[in-house]
Amino acid sequence: MTERYLKDFQAGQTFGSGRIHIDADRIKSFAAEFDPQPFHLDERAATESILGGLAASGWHTAAITMRLLVDSDLKPAGGIVAAGFDELRWPRPVRPGDELRVESEVLEIRASKSRPDQGIIKVRATTLNQNNEAVQVSVGNLIVRGRPASSGETHG
Amino acid sequence: MTERYLKDFQAGQTFGSGRIHIDADRIKSFAAEFDPQPFHLDERAATESILGGLAASGWHTAAITMRLLVDSDLKPAGGIVAAGFDELRWPRPVRPGDELRVESEVLEIRASKSRPDQGIIKVRATTLNQNNEAVQVSVGNLIVRGRPASSGETHG
Repeated sequence: MTERYLKDFQAGQTFGSGRIHIDADRIKSFAAEFDPQPFHLDERAATESILGGLAASGWHTAAITMRLLVDSDLKPAGGIVAAGFDELRWPRPVRPGDELRVESEVLEIRASKSRPDQGIIKVRATTLNQNNEAVQVSVGNLIVRGRPASSGETHG
Repeated sequence: MTERYLKDFQAGQTFGSGRIHIDADRIKSFAAEFDPQPFHLDERAATESILGGLAASGWHTAAITMRLLVDSDLKPAGGIVAAGFDELRWPRPVRPGDELRVESEVLEIRASKSRPDQGIIKVRATTLNQNNEAVQVSVGNLIVRGRPASSGETHG
């Protein structure tokens, strides 16, 4: 898959992804390092919690979503580099045994006024489980190159 | 540190955190699993990239920020559970050797109309490096219990 420059994106474009399987051991080991709270670490404690059972840290879901996006056909030239997010939420817990995929949609394209060599695309990424229920919704602003690097270009 | 219920939070409260040291090996291994792009994986490739050198994945920074928050005195009763984020951005790259800490501030408290047993606090968390430069800013909405669980309570 070729990299896409700013001109190659348009509002309404959508991209699918592969799938990643979630298992209880990685939910717990990710949480032990980054989000050590009972509902991410221990099945029994989790049943008593607001999440009603063992669930992945939202940051684990976000990281898995990034992996799915990097491997998808979105492929902005120069890589996926986010200026920031306007929205990030987890409408439903991610459970052991879930299989996640991402649907991304380009919402808006903006050329940069100060930097003609780059622009911003606004992308909504919806992470879905095997029942097509959204487990994460994000709206991010990605920095995209305007055109191929021109160091070897001749004008003539 | 005791857990805090909704009544224990007020706008303007601030909380510090401990510190976490960032090393190049963990930047690369996190990226290999979740964000395999050259500027997170390889020093030489990173110098050519928009980030100008090896830098942590934003999701790695977000996960480390979560760890610092969980270990901080914020301690909402029931745990740190985010309904979602209104903002998330990375104003500056996180480099190998950085030492990160978090300053969090309660911006707003809202009781839930539908669920008198819980409410939402809006919290800005600013992740800073050893030079007090912001590397991440987030504004999140956390679900907080209204009061201690009353299953054994008697009224009389």
